Amino acid sequence: MSNSTLLLALDFGGTKYAAALIRAGEQEWIARRQQSAPPGADAHTDLAIVLGLAHDLLAEHPGRLIAVGVSFGGPVDFSRGLVRLSHHVPGWENLPLRDHLQAEFGVPVSVDNDANAGALGEWRFGAGQGCSSLLYLTVSTGVGGGWVIDNRPYRGADGMAGEIGHTRVDPNGSLCVCGRRGCLEVLACGPAIARRARERLQAEPQLGAGLRRLIENDLAALNAERVSRAAAEGNELAEEVLLAAARDLGTGIGNALSLMNPQRVVLGGGVTKSGEKYWAEVRRAARANTLPEISVDIVPAALGDDAPLWGAIALAENVLLEHA
Amino acid sequence: MSNSTLLLALDFGGTKYAAALIRAGEQEWIARRQQSAPPGADAHTDLAIVLGLAHDLLAEHPGRLIAVGVSFGGPVDFSRGLVRLSHHVPGWENLPLRDHLQAEFGVPVSVDNDANAGALGEWRFGAGQGCSSLLYLTVSTGVGGGWVIDNRPYRGADGMAGEIGHTRVDPNGSLCVCGRRGCLEVLACGPAIARRARERLQAEPQLGAGLRRLIENDLAALNAERVSRAAAEGNELAEEVLLAAARDLGTGIGNALSLMNPQRVVLGGGVTKSGEKYWAEVRRAARANTLPEISVDIVPAALGDDAPLWGAIALAENVLLEHA
Repeated sequence: MSNSTLLLALDFGGTKYAAALIRAGEQEWIARRQQSAPPGADAHTDLAIVLGLAHDLLAEHPGRLIAVGVSFGGPVDFSRGLVRLSHHVPGWENLPLRDHLQAEFGVPVSVDNDANAGALGEWRFGAGQGCSSLLYLTVSTGVGGGWVIDNRPYRGADGMAGEIGHTRVDPNGSLCVCGRRGCLEVLACGPAIARRARERLQAEPQLGAGLRRLIENDLAALNAERVSRAAAEGNELAEEVLLAAARDLGTGIGNALSLMNPQRVVLGGGVTKSGEKYWAEVRRAARANTLPEISVDIVPAALGDDAPLWGAIALAENVLLEHA
Repeated sequence: MSNSTLLLALDFGGTKYAAALIRAGEQEWIARRQQSAPPGADAHTDLAIVLGLAHDLLAEHPGRLIAVGVSFGGPVDFSRGLVRLSHHVPGWENLPLRDHLQAEFGVPVSVDNDANAGALGEWRFGAGQGCSSLLYLTVSTGVGGGWVIDNRPYRGADGMAGEIGHTRVDPNGSLCVCGRRGCLEVLACGPAIARRARERLQAEPQLGAGLRRLIENDLAALNAERVSRAAAEGNELAEEVLLAAARDLGTGIGNALSLMNPQRVVLGGGVTKSGEKYWAEVRRAARANTLPEISVDIVPAALGDDAPLWGAIALAENVLLEHA
């Protein structure tokens, strides 16, 4: 197999890095490596780690590399192949990642942000296959989004399309990192669920016994996953908090449905692993917040946390088509 | 000129009808006719009036008709050429307008709703020329919207894209015709401005002297145009009401910018003729409600109330390309 043509996918995830190889035209990894971000990483260490993973893979699986796709966990200027910045790691400001990797590997490279890559990955290989239009959301430490419109990635005039996390759901809601109140992100992301649970536990000392047990009475140990677990175990306060976040997410999705009427919405990210009641509430709220003529088809990401990595493969395919 | 090739544009506007002729490839009407809707009209009389206008034009301006484009003031199933219904006139439910007109004129016909047609018209002939993506809004008795994405009309999976009027700006806002609270439409359309002014005049008998004079103390005579006039003449209450509607419109547009990052937003419809302060507040609120990386380029419709009619010409051009 030493004359296989290979595509390389790279994922700079903020807290983890991954690299994977595929034979062009296939839909299965030859090999996939990942690594957690070390404490105190900067852009330089990020790059060195990911290049290390990539070169190991290429050395172990000989073949002809023909393109590289990259998912980056932060804002990217797609047309120039430039990372604008990382919210997690210093030193990424205006780094020309595409040109750097093209020099490194000597093949065409395409770089996009993780939400756009996730949208493209799910559309090409996952839960959005066959949909001409698709909204992908990732709900974890933030809420990101990406679009496929008319069977193509849609990035918007400034490469900023898909910022559903900063559409406003409740003008009187909590203060968001962006400086406004009641953005979808500050209501529905993982830290928002932890914050909402903390506020309830502080305000209502008689409630939430199950959740308190789970965090051993340490409010600092609250996170969305534990709230979700307590809800699954029957704690009412946890369930109310979780479903309030689901309702806000569904409301934000409903607005997006009214505006764009995509064929399907695909939800990924850790928070969306919160069980059937969570999903039912997201769907109910979306349905209730859009017009009856508009379809509400909301499904889980099929590729899970690998959606951006698969999206990187689709980016590599697309950049080859542009160079063809 | 009897061998000119002609395109015919028809506009079923709800309260007025229009027909216009153009030579293929030109950007100036040969002739344009319009007529107000008579009281008690139904789909049958609508059709008879518009066909009358069209046949008069064709008789007076001989040539070879090659396609017809139609803007309809209500929901349309574009792919099937079917009017879903009219909110103003009975008898339109599921009427196959495209097939009917194709039989009448013997040429390809394309039918779309007025907001999509307006978007296409402004993009092809008006304030959106050269933009690869565009959101068009018409703010009058309702708030409608239409998209051009990647240089093509985008209609969504159910032909419902662009329903920005039913995205939610304030979950505690007034009750909308759609049954939800605080939709953009119920906060920013013309009747909303009249309603807001009425509520203020009733609640604050000592205020609004200028506006009260203008309507001769008859609250039933309130409309957006009069509120706007009183504001221009310096009435504070009228200005506050007008600017509150502008702020809500800008907030809704800001959400659309975050979600889609279009290159430009074009605003048409009677309410947007409310002067510089109104426009400044729309732009300010949109800017304040989206991310700093996202451009805010909001301009008045260049084609005014004729945007849908010009859009009908663009629809006729597009249907010819599909048949070519």
